[in-house]
Amino acid sequence: MGKKSKVSMAVIRRLPKYYRYLGELLDRDIKRISSQQLSELTGFTASQIRQDLNNFGGFGQQGYGYNVEELHKQLGKILGLQKTYKTIIVGAGNLGQAIAHYRGFQREGFKMLALFDINPRLIGLKLWDIEIKDVETLEDFIKENEVDIGVICTPKEVSQEIADKLVKSGIKAIWNFAPTDLKVSKDVVVENVHLNESLFTLSYLLKEKLKKDEE
Amino acid sequence: MGKKSKVSMAVIRRLPKYYRYLGELLDRDIKRISSQQLSELTGFTASQIRQDLNNFGGFGQQGYGYNVEELHKQLGKILGLQKTYKTIIVGAGNLGQAIAHYRGFQREGFKMLALFDINPRLIGLKLWDIEIKDVETLEDFIKENEVDIGVICTPKEVSQEIADKLVKSGIKAIWNFAPTDLKVSKDVVVENVHLNESLFTLSYLLKEKLKKDEE
Repeated sequence: MGKKSKVSMAVIRRLPKYYRYLGELLDRDIKRISSQQLSELTGFTASQIRQDLNNFGGFGQQGYGYNVEELHKQLGKILGLQKTYKTIIVGAGNLGQAIAHYRGFQREGFKMLALFDINPRLIGLKLWDIEIKDVETLEDFIKENEVDIGVICTPKEVSQEIADKLVKSGIKAIWNFAPTDLKVSKDVVVENVHLNESLFTLSYLLKEKLKKDEE
Repeated sequence: MGKKSKVSMAVIRRLPKYYRYLGELLDRDIKRISSQQLSELTGFTASQIRQDLNNFGGFGQQGYGYNVEELHKQLGKILGLQKTYKTIIVGAGNLGQAIAHYRGFQREGFKMLALFDINPRLIGLKLWDIEIKDVETLEDFIKENEVDIGVICTPKEVSQEIADKLVKSGIKAIWNFAPTDLKVSKDVVVENVHLNESLFTLSYLLKEKLKKDEE
């Protein structure tokens, strides 16, 4: 049997959106949904949705559509959300704190073990059960606790140095908020959140809108 | 003369990346760069880069490449970064605070005027010159100050209600961090930052990597 072909990033990035919409349908006690209805909800074509899901198995039934609870559960598995990930955050400023305490993440299995910082005024503080530790203890902590995910919420100037420490200590995945590209070995997964890029997309669209309004 | 064809979102989203890379080149005092070198930096093909930039004018010179400072400046204009945008944030929790105080945004012309919240323990606090105001005063504040951008950092349950207030008060653009789709009139620009979706993409990739490691 041939090697299973890799799913493209374009498909992968749609999966959490489906998961979110199905979660909302669950909240509204909706039991089943057709790909046409999913299409109206999500903005993706019914055929795109069917194609995307077919990468992972046949979830729907001809003439019935999809069972919302079952599809939501399966998507959760596909997204790797059925297990717990031990997570640490480097950078205990507002952003790091926001990530550490975001209930949505805890709910989906991302267990925030600790924050790390260099600021002596933050080190030792404990907020809602999550302690801010000295970044000097980062590598030992990761090894001792077999941490899975490291979140980088530091200034960009130190982000590469921190990434190197995370990788050296055995971290397998990095969620990066620093506005830079990290260089890591191929066997570490990196997902970037480039807030600047999002905001500048907004300013582009706003500028175009204001220009149009003046015409 | 025909109407100028609209630039696609795919192109628009690459522009802030070019802007970032060019900023880094500027920091390193690099004066010029070819599209081939830009390609190696950004990961986009040289022809994609040239095509993208050609939507906005001819910036490069055959045989010379691009002048880094000039292209950075022009991209800044294209992204609408040459003007100041009056910005307010609704939701003064960790995330709202993080956005309010992110120096990178202030530097690029996004002037954070105030935060708004319902929590009486936060209302009236002033952190680094930015005051947390009662959300009851939101609409009047927006009208009196002709605020351009509203950032939504509230729980998802109230985000639509807040978006409605923002739009009613004349706000032209919304940067939305609530994990939901906002319904707004067509003449309001919305840019979503779906942190959940980013994190779940990470967990998918991590899950696949761990699966591969076991094979």
